Amino acid sequence: MFTPRKEETPPRTIGLLTDFGLSDPYVGQMKAVINGKAPACTIIDISHDVAPFNVAQAGFFLAASHVHFPKDAVILAVVDPGVGTDRRIVGLQLDERLLIAPDNGLLSLALSSSWTNQVRAYDLTKAVEAPNKVSHTFHGRDVFAPLAAWLALGGNPAGLGGEIDPASLVRCDWSAPEVKETSARCHVLHIDRFGNCVLNLEAASVPNISRLHLQSPSRFDLAYVTTYAEMPDGMPGLLEGSQGFLEIAMNQHSAAKELGLSMGDQLTLTWEE
Amino acid sequence: MFTPRKEETPPRTIGLLTDFGLSDPYVGQMKAVINGKAPACTIIDISHDVAPFNVAQAGFFLAASHVHFPKDAVILAVVDPGVGTDRRIVGLQLDERLLIAPDNGLLSLALSSSWTNQVRAYDLTKAVEAPNKVSHTFHGRDVFAPLAAWLALGGNPAGLGGEIDPASLVRCDWSAPEVKETSARCHVLHIDRFGNCVLNLEAASVPNISRLHLQSPSRFDLAYVTTYAEMPDGMPGLLEGSQGFLEIAMNQHSAAKELGLSMGDQLTLTWEE
Amino acid sequence: MFTPRKEETPPRTIGLLTDFGLSDPYVGQMKAVINGKAPACTIIDISHDVAPFNVAQAGFFLAASHVHFPKDAVILAVVDPGVGTDRRIVGLQLDERLLIAPDNGLLSLALSSSWTNQVRAYDLTKAVEAPNKVSHTFHGRDVFAPLAAWLALGGNPAGLGGEIDPASLVRCDWSAPEVKETSARCHVLHIDRFGNCVLNLEAASVPNISRLHLQSPSRFDLAYVTTYAEMPDGMPGLLEGSQGFLEIAMNQHSAAKELGLSMGDQLTLTWEE
Repeated sequence: MFTPRKEETPPRTIGLLTDFGLSDPYVGQMKAVINGKAPACTIIDISHDVAPFNVAQAGFFLAASHVHFPKDAVILAVVDPGVGTDRRIVGLQLDERLLIAPDNGLLSLALSSSWTNQVRAYDLTKAVEAPNKVSHTFHGRDVFAPLAAWLALGGNPAGLGGEIDPASLVRCDWSAPEVKETSARCHVLHIDRFGNCVLNLEAASVPNISRLHLQSPSRFDLAYVTTYAEMPDGMPGLLEGSQGFLEIAMNQHSAAKELGLSMGDQLTLTWEE
Repeated sequence: MFTPRKEETPPRTIGLLTDFGLSDPYVGQMKAVINGKAPACTIIDISHDVAPFNVAQAGFFLAASHVHFPKDAVILAVVDPGVGTDRRIVGLQLDERLLIAPDNGLLSLALSSSWTNQVRAYDLTKAVEAPNKVSHTFHGRDVFAPLAAWLALGGNPAGLGGEIDPASLVRCDWSAPEVKETSARCHVLHIDRFGNCVLNLEAASVPNISRLHLQSPSRFDLAYVTTYAEMPDGMPGLLEGSQGFLEIAMNQHSAAKELGLSMGDQLTLTWEE
Repeated sequence: MFTPRKEETPPRTIGLLTDFGLSDPYVGQMKAVINGKAPACTIIDISHDVAPFNVAQAGFFLAASHVHFPKDAVILAVVDPGVGTDRRIVGLQLDERLLIAPDNGLLSLALSSSWTNQVRAYDLTKAVEAPNKVSHTFHGRDVFAPLAAWLALGGNPAGLGGEIDPASLVRCDWSAPEVKETSARCHVLHIDRFGNCVLNLEAASVPNISRLHLQSPSRFDLAYVTTYAEMPDGMPGLLEGSQGFLEIAMNQHSAAKELGLSMGDQLTLTWEE
């Protein structure tokens, strides 16, 4: 186990997504471990500012980001409230990209919103048996980082615990909105730095009409627009954001603040046919 | 367009400066795109914590930082309130370094405070026509990142939209203080983590005399010093900071807090001859 | 001085630890300087969010992190309230890893908690005489960064100012707790993002018994546990954290908030034999 295949090919890029923050030395220690094992490997941070233990938000970040990585990237997502328990460690292969996470629902949205048929899943829990000393509280550094380095160097994910059914991965209900003919019940997946509110609604699920209504619980009118600049100043709009999901936004203002929305809020959008 | 010149030389280092923050996955997605196109390229973050839409602050960060990069670096600065409108994308070449930004004044201070005669400018707006899918709201990832990768691999900036007159770039008034014989009207470009207040005044513009006065609107005495340690405890000072501009500072205290200064404040410094 | 030895070996990885934050362009400028001098060198951030001027916290981050770096890494720690004074710049070699810092106590805890006998120390203050322009306020960029690049490329630390006695390095009292038969006086080195409170107590210094008491000044019962998940919900525990020191924690809650602890607090742990 963990003997890298000798290859002439350069190592796969590693993406990192955690709720460890950048103030503590945790992310730096993960990168130091990866660098020691795979010195030529490029590491790219997706975010380390997932709200502590917020698997839903991490799931959104992952679903929105993995497609932008190089085709053979290894992406490590560690938001792991169950560290130290017997939760599985799993890998989800979408085309050639490999997403690694604790099996707690983090991979849910990436799986349900993926367009590829090339889906495979692997049980990687055996990585816990790595020869190095493993702490009980920081598997990100002691288990996930060496695992990612090994995979980046060409390790075969099927070689650890074997292939499993992707349908066996833990799923979360926040990945499924309820869309009807003239309404959609959804919730706020994430509020970004600019106050844009990302919904768990893919663009095609709501008709592109000039006026929709948001119940949250107050009622607001929304214009369906294409760019921030199209919105009249001070009026909220709905648009297909850059992350593959619909967003409620206001041009150069925080829609979250103006409409009183918070991450996790349940909303209803309605429209006339 | 966008076919990199084959070269034996290593790719140019890319610097990144944005107002995207590090909490959202935006910067990671930009880096993932660059990594996919220019895997051997080193990316260095200047800052992603420019206040949202604050072109003046970004202009200061850029003017203060570009000279420290390798001589042939490509530096990408994306603070872009006009994304989705028809604002230009421009490149400013100072010696061999190439600064890329939306044409909204972001390059103003770098241009006016640069000491080189080797200045060229390019219209790069055509990068929007790149073959990949371009979102309406995130040109940082979909337009600027591929453009930077292409330039880092040896792409010729004159090959996109041609050379333009550097004087045609949008200028901002915050780049010009008003300096007289015994006074200077200026403003606060930036307040750093330690509370040091960076002014839009280059060191030579104010005489190095022992006592100056700050009107802001309260009046304070300032000592012109060389190091933080020279200031008497609890007394503010003026010094030539590390960023190429004068700073108001207090040794191990926040000058901003003690003097009640905020980013963008208009100040007057006076002195006796 | 500063002529790198020509070597075929790849450059040493550089770790960075500062109190400069990531909002200002300071860290980016340090990396740009390193990149210009040692383009093939990998840079890994430990943290830049040490509380301003907090040498004790930086000392903890360094002591907890250096062992995870590649065996020959160069680690640069710049928390430097005395910048511009005549404080020494020193290097501490633990096995083959080389830790560089101002001589203000930052290396104290790494030295006292290190298990290796292979300890050497060097006076590197001469790096200030480097040929480039040196600001009076930002030695991180103008002195430490070129020094780290030079060392990473194979420069010999003994070649600058010679070897010195490790015992001559400035020591801080916060590195030494007071442990007796049924009690330990210690303090809070750091509070992490999750509210875990790291103590300046190595694991072996307190008996692993089921119930201890914390006086801080209120009195709390603590269970000595192995994982977060073992703690009953809402009850604080003591555990051997991932950083090599004991931590007070609460499962999925902030122990700091619930127990009212702050960084630097003096605590007493007591237990029955």
